[in-house]
Amino acid sequence: MLNKLIFKYIGKVLIAFSILLLVPIIVSLVYSENILNFIVPLCVSLGLGILLNCSNSSKKTLYAKDGFIIVSISWILISLLGALPFWLGLDISFVDALFESVSGFTTTGATIFDDVESLSNSILFWRSFSHFIGGMGVLAFVMAVIPMSKDDKSMHVLKAEMPGHSVAKLVPGIKKTLFYLYGIYLGLTLIEFILLMVGGLDPFHSILISMGTAGTGGFSYLNSGLASFSLFNKYVVAIFMFLFGVNFNIYFLIIIMKDIKTALKSEELKVYILIYIFAVLFVLLNTYNMFSNMSEAFVNSCFHISSFMTSTGYSIGDVNIYPAACRIIVLFLMLVSACSGSTCGGFKISRLILVFKTIKRDLLKVFHPNSVHIITLGGKKVEEETVNATTTFLSLYIFFIIIIMILVSFDGFSFEVVINSVFTTFGNVGLAFEVGSFSIFSDFSTFIMSVGMLLGRLEIFPLIGLISSIRK
Amino acid sequence: MLNKLIFKYIGKVLIAFSILLLVPIIVSLVYSENILNFIVPLCVSLGLGILLNCSNSSKKTLYAKDGFIIVSISWILISLLGALPFWLGLDISFVDALFESVSGFTTTGATIFDDVESLSNSILFWRSFSHFIGGMGVLAFVMAVIPMSKDDKSMHVLKAEMPGHSVAKLVPGIKKTLFYLYGIYLGLTLIEFILLMVGGLDPFHSILISMGTAGTGGFSYLNSGLASFSLFNKYVVAIFMFLFGVNFNIYFLIIIMKDIKTALKSEELKVYILIYIFAVLFVLLNTYNMFSNMSEAFVNSCFHISSFMTSTGYSIGDVNIYPAACRIIVLFLMLVSACSGSTCGGFKISRLILVFKTIKRDLLKVFHPNSVHIITLGGKKVEEETVNATTTFLSLYIFFIIIIMILVSFDGFSFEVVINSVFTTFGNVGLAFEVGSFSIFSDFSTFIMSVGMLLGRLEIFPLIGLISSIRK
Repeated sequence: MLNKLIFKYIGKVLIAFSILLLVPIIVSLVYSENILNFIVPLCVSLGLGILLNCSNSSKKTLYAKDGFIIVSISWILISLLGALPFWLGLDISFVDALFESVSGFTTTGATIFDDVESLSNSILFWRSFSHFIGGMGVLAFVMAVIPMSKDDKSMHVLKAEMPGHSVAKLVPGIKKTLFYLYGIYLGLTLIEFILLMVGGLDPFHSILISMGTAGTGGFSYLNSGLASFSLFNKYVVAIFMFLFGVNFNIYFLIIIMKDIKTALKSEELKVYILIYIFAVLFVLLNTYNMFSNMSEAFVNSCFHISSFMTSTGYSIGDVNIYPAACRIIVLFLMLVSACSGSTCGGFKISRLILVFKTIKRDLLKVFHPNSVHIITLGGKKVEEETVNATTTFLSLYIFFIIIIMILVSFDGFSFEVVINSVFTTFGNVGLAFEVGSFSIFSDFSTFIMSVGMLLGRLEIFPLIGLISSIRK
Repeated sequence: MLNKLIFKYIGKVLIAFSILLLVPIIVSLVYSENILNFIVPLCVSLGLGILLNCSNSSKKTLYAKDGFIIVSISWILISLLGALPFWLGLDISFVDALFESVSGFTTTGATIFDDVESLSNSILFWRSFSHFIGGMGVLAFVMAVIPMSKDDKSMHVLKAEMPGHSVAKLVPGIKKTLFYLYGIYLGLTLIEFILLMVGGLDPFHSILISMGTAGTGGFSYLNSGLASFSLFNKYVVAIFMFLFGVNFNIYFLIIIMKDIKTALKSEELKVYILIYIFAVLFVLLNTYNMFSNMSEAFVNSCFHISSFMTSTGYSIGDVNIYPAACRIIVLFLMLVSACSGSTCGGFKISRLILVFKTIKRDLLKVFHPNSVHIITLGGKKVEEETVNATTTFLSLYIFFIIIIMILVSFDGFSFEVVINSVFTTFGNVGLAFEVGSFSIFSDFSTFIMSVGMLLGRLEIFPLIGLISSIRK
């Protein structure tokens, strides 16, 4: 039996979503474009939302599993509703529209369109806006804006949606925590927006690109990505992609708490910076002779490693020039991605650190059976359940990637195309070697990769929770 | 400080190895070939062995870690000594000779030679004989033939060498257990040898092929693999490859204990058979239109799935005709391989089952935090340490594959070549898509893949144990 409180919650999510749909309607009005594409999903979302919100429930408590179910259903509904503007406004199949919508909300940025320059302004805005919504999470938005009776029981919902193995409450109370997180999110986006305009980009496109960076999405409004950007703007985007890959707790510590010392002690941050520097230098060493000068090679390397590692997916040139060694490293960077508590997809560096510490602990156990070892992260003991959940997540991560690869391989493309397209969608990256537009794939593969993007963004557990509760 | 008993043990291994070298010497004499290629390693091995065996030790006990060190050093020394016949007898570099030797003893079967038909009979015998030695393990042989003071302290050594997550003692006492295991090993090999001769193959080549099947090795004496074999012999090899992929405990239960009921209850056996049937049908469905008739397609599918799944690596035709979906499935079959307690390489099915059960347990923990679940395998509770060691092994397995892939990719080959060559060597398979002879790789990559084969065969832990004890 599903807890009826779940429906109420999903109702609230849909109402909030219909409010968000007002923004692209305003954009449509500004550019005198068809508003009907957005009015239809708005009405459906609002109607269904009000209906679900009216459901009465005697229960007052949400359990861990309910959080997973709410998050899964909400994301599926919003993906479906978000596909309507593409489906209504453009001549594409619903599967393709769904792919674009899922790619947007999961902040993947893989596109089904061969020619994005032919898209209307309101559709372009909707794509980038979906990155912006999806980056922080749909549920997080709902909790931030809609009145709730009690704060703490919503923690399960937030935990289920937030990327990373643990969600730290910055301050007591969810609303206050979300207030700070959104402050950091909006603030960084605003600074990037201003800097892009300083760099010569017009306001509308500056909004698009900064929303895409903030959510680590990667939809572009140009067929050539950001290749035509000024050197200054390339660095702006590269730096902000990197910054959105940092755990937001670090910004909270630095900006709000003025506690730079604790912030810089973060193991995850150190590893993130080290991997980034290593990868940039590695790609630079292996590609510099393909550019006319070192400055161009350097910005390319910085930009693309930022883009791959934070699962954003913007590009400023052809990455197919990368030799095999760079491609393999990038493939694994895609899957690992950046810090937990950021807007990035992927496995997250904190989990990688945990896996290595678990390996070390268990190896010591193998060699010295009677010894006792405790795993710590950032100086704090990590509970055994978290350790187990992390190794299980790794196994599931690999398992689903293999399954999706097998399913997608039926299209008959080469192994390299299959592995790149699956890694880039599952890791919510969007940029891939040997793959440009995802229109080359069959409807079946497109759908499977849409499921993969959702699995990747929601970090698998919520969707399994949903399926297991349906089976009962 | 290294336990001096370790040296004594390694000394015994080298003495035993020098005895084994008498066999190719006899073959050389029979075919009037140069015996010097084998006399040199025999003398070195015997001399060093006697020297080490004389070392006095006051200690009487071997610990888990000592077992790992003995196994690692023994395998490294034997690989080096086993490379001498190739290096002395043929015009190749020592790195290439080492690759061939490691490929033999680890029962991989990947070859450095472009033209195996030009090799002398004694060299061909040495290649296949190394499979036969490596299949059961060098240390197991030593323990079976050389007198030991106390039986039980050697269990650590056997555990470190035997494939799979656990070594079950069939009967009390190591020697008796090994007696039965060798009985099964020799018996099955003998039956295959006779059947191959019934199928029209001459005695010498029947010996080579049955030794290669027994160890799940895969070195062939023909450039075209076993393509020229009769249909009968193709089925003989296919069936025996499959049989050598079964846990030897099953044979013990059936043949010695006459307990077929318990034997058939084995979860690992069931999953092995199911995966095998699924894979054969999958490949058959995707390739039957490439053959002139269904019978040919069927034997091809049976043979190659046996070969890939048991990490043998014999072939009876071009596997490059496989479409992408088959290749991806085969790649993962290579890494998983067959049952523990068999002569196969890879991750082993029992570990795969354990990983899935751990996933299920941990997922239930995520959804129902207060519940308690026990993992069982074959009706018996699996200790938490075994579960942890298994997930750690999975992480290490992936970690080393990634590292080796990155290192090998510097040769500049395509991603498909890199992933296939690394998977096939690390999984001790030997057969790969898009790769024929391994002579195409640089000395650096050849060496790295040799290390990979050893890591795969010894299941990582022993070599890490060795390195960590050197560091101290």
